[in-house]
Amino acid sequence: MGDLSDRRWMAAALALSERGRGRTAPNPCVGCVLVKDGVVVGRGWTQAGGRPHAEAMAVDETGGKSRGATAYVTLEPCAAPGRGPACASVLIEAGVARVVAALRDPFPAVDGRGFERLREAGIAVTVGPGAAEAERAMAGFLTRQRNGRPHVTLKLATSLDGCIARAGGESRWITGPQARAHAHLERSRHEAILVGRGTYDADAPALDVRLAGLEARAPRKILLTTHPFVSSAVEKPQPSAKPVFLDCARNERMGWEVIGAPEDIATLSGVDHLLVEGGARTAAAFLKAGLVDRLLLYRAPILIGGGVAALGDIGLGALADAHGRWTLTDARQLGSDRLEVYGRN
Amino acid sequence: MGDLSDRRWMAAALALSERGRGRTAPNPCVGCVLVKDGVVVGRGWTQAGGRPHAEAMAVDETGGKSRGATAYVTLEPCAAPGRGPACASVLIEAGVARVVAALRDPFPAVDGRGFERLREAGIAVTVGPGAAEAERAMAGFLTRQRNGRPHVTLKLATSLDGCIARAGGESRWITGPQARAHAHLERSRHEAILVGRGTYDADAPALDVRLAGLEARAPRKILLTTHPFVSSAVEKPQPSAKPVFLDCARNERMGWEVIGAPEDIATLSGVDHLLVEGGARTAAAFLKAGLVDRLLLYRAPILIGGGVAALGDIGLGALADAHGRWTLTDARQLGSDRLEVYGRN
Repeated sequence: MGDLSDRRWMAAALALSERGRGRTAPNPCVGCVLVKDGVVVGRGWTQAGGRPHAEAMAVDETGGKSRGATAYVTLEPCAAPGRGPACASVLIEAGVARVVAALRDPFPAVDGRGFERLREAGIAVTVGPGAAEAERAMAGFLTRQRNGRPHVTLKLATSLDGCIARAGGESRWITGPQARAHAHLERSRHEAILVGRGTYDADAPALDVRLAGLEARAPRKILLTTHPFVSSAVEKPQPSAKPVFLDCARNERMGWEVIGAPEDIATLSGVDHLLVEGGARTAAAFLKAGLVDRLLLYRAPILIGGGVAALGDIGLGALADAHGRWTLTDARQLGSDRLEVYGRN
Repeated sequence: MGDLSDRRWMAAALALSERGRGRTAPNPCVGCVLVKDGVVVGRGWTQAGGRPHAEAMAVDETGGKSRGATAYVTLEPCAAPGRGPACASVLIEAGVARVVAALRDPFPAVDGRGFERLREAGIAVTVGPGAAEAERAMAGFLTRQRNGRPHVTLKLATSLDGCIARAGGESRWITGPQARAHAHLERSRHEAILVGRGTYDADAPALDVRLAGLEARAPRKILLTTHPFVSSAVEKPQPSAKPVFLDCARNERMGWEVIGAPEDIATLSGVDHLLVEGGARTAAAFLKAGLVDRLLLYRAPILIGGGVAALGDIGLGALADAHGRWTLTDARQLGSDRLEVYGRN
């Protein structure tokens, strides 16, 4: 679909779209480039909070020189005005000659109406170049539209023998500084991070983004627990054998939101990308519920032996059922560690 | 060390040396090419059982046209006649002008005497090109010389979460046909394969080489057990709660040799390359004893969850101690599985 140069310009728009990932929900993170005579004259991506949209930003950047340009946009331009004018109108008024979109927008208020408006205004429309990549780039928005829940990435950091900690619980550090920095970058690409009760109690993790310049991108913190007891690690109560109920108000002050089951992630409004960071039981619960879309595997070249396994029971009935579920979509070396990214088939 | 063309020809000799790997003990698996006017005129590698040596085979292949050639040989030619004439003599009589060797032979009866004889005969000698690769290619012989035991490769075939079986024991199949074929090729490169009692009892594994044309290369079978009871899987006795002592004579008829501890591998004469195939306790015992030189990790893109961990306790005192022990030496895709080979630092 589309010729080589369409796909090349769309790749640029897709790269821009990634800049907003994790900060635009419930809006999709869209990217846009305006190209005239083989030169990029404007670039845009959906800004934090969802406005301005990518198209408006790109048109604005051209300083009035969009006339006759081709707009490469990762998703169909919106058709109805919202907090700003509709993107289709922005492109029409800017005088673009052609619009190339990777995907049609499944959102009911758009769903082809954007393309229709453009065509009615005499603008040539091509749909399809970079569609597969756009599906990945806007996975959060699309999963929310299609499945009514956030797109879920499960992160695991293991040794070669699949352990996430020593038998005694020691897990700092399995991976090296480059892999850990990458994991923090991934945090910044999600609206929220979730951990289970065991990890919360053991580490009271800050779940912040410790990367220079990205500190402000810390996602929301979600705790999965079916037993709302106060955590000793967080509350530091006097030693007591009696469980204490979780103090929800205090928990909220500390910035945590609490859910009781993996399925409850659907209720997290404003969260289109959720990063599940563990531990083993929580990871297994999400897999068992069929709620993991993407695996982020960091693997260090070490052996632990008899340590804490990466995953609890996921309800696998037979080995044959395990095959064909995951496809490698990216792999890279991070210092001495290896990152592999798998997408669900 | 050595110029580019020396290293290139040595690479050819090293590739030839691999043909004998696993069948030449206690002799090293040596490779040799004879090059004249930029053309290979003879190729040789140590044959099964150790004779003829690589040099004799290469000289023979030239059909008397070795005069003035350069011999590239992965190990110092031997200096004293054994079952055949010494290789140094063979090269001198063939009239080669120059000998390039990757490594000096640490075997006490050689240890520089081969080079000495060549130099006395007026032959130019270069030592060093391809030394690191030759260390790997002849790891079996060199480990036996230096440490008095076979070179040990530990094979693990795991899921992404580090399991070698489902909780119930199901392990067929985690990896796909290409990975399994590669594992059989690796078998053919070892004089012996070792499994522990759990694997022996559960599977009574044939440990054969199921590759067309290589069936005859099946290695010796070694069982590691501290409890010499008869295996029900092998002996098929009447159901009985009482353990029965291992019938050594019968065991021997079935082609198994038995050792009681990982350290006993030193006593396996004629075994310079040992492949440890599991299970988790046996793998851990070898790692704990510091007796693993090479890791062969086959990894399938599947998740098992709550399965059998690849390794039991290896006596790791702290995570920091786990780092820096292994270096990736090879990695490749085998169908949908990935093979990684690690060498001990």
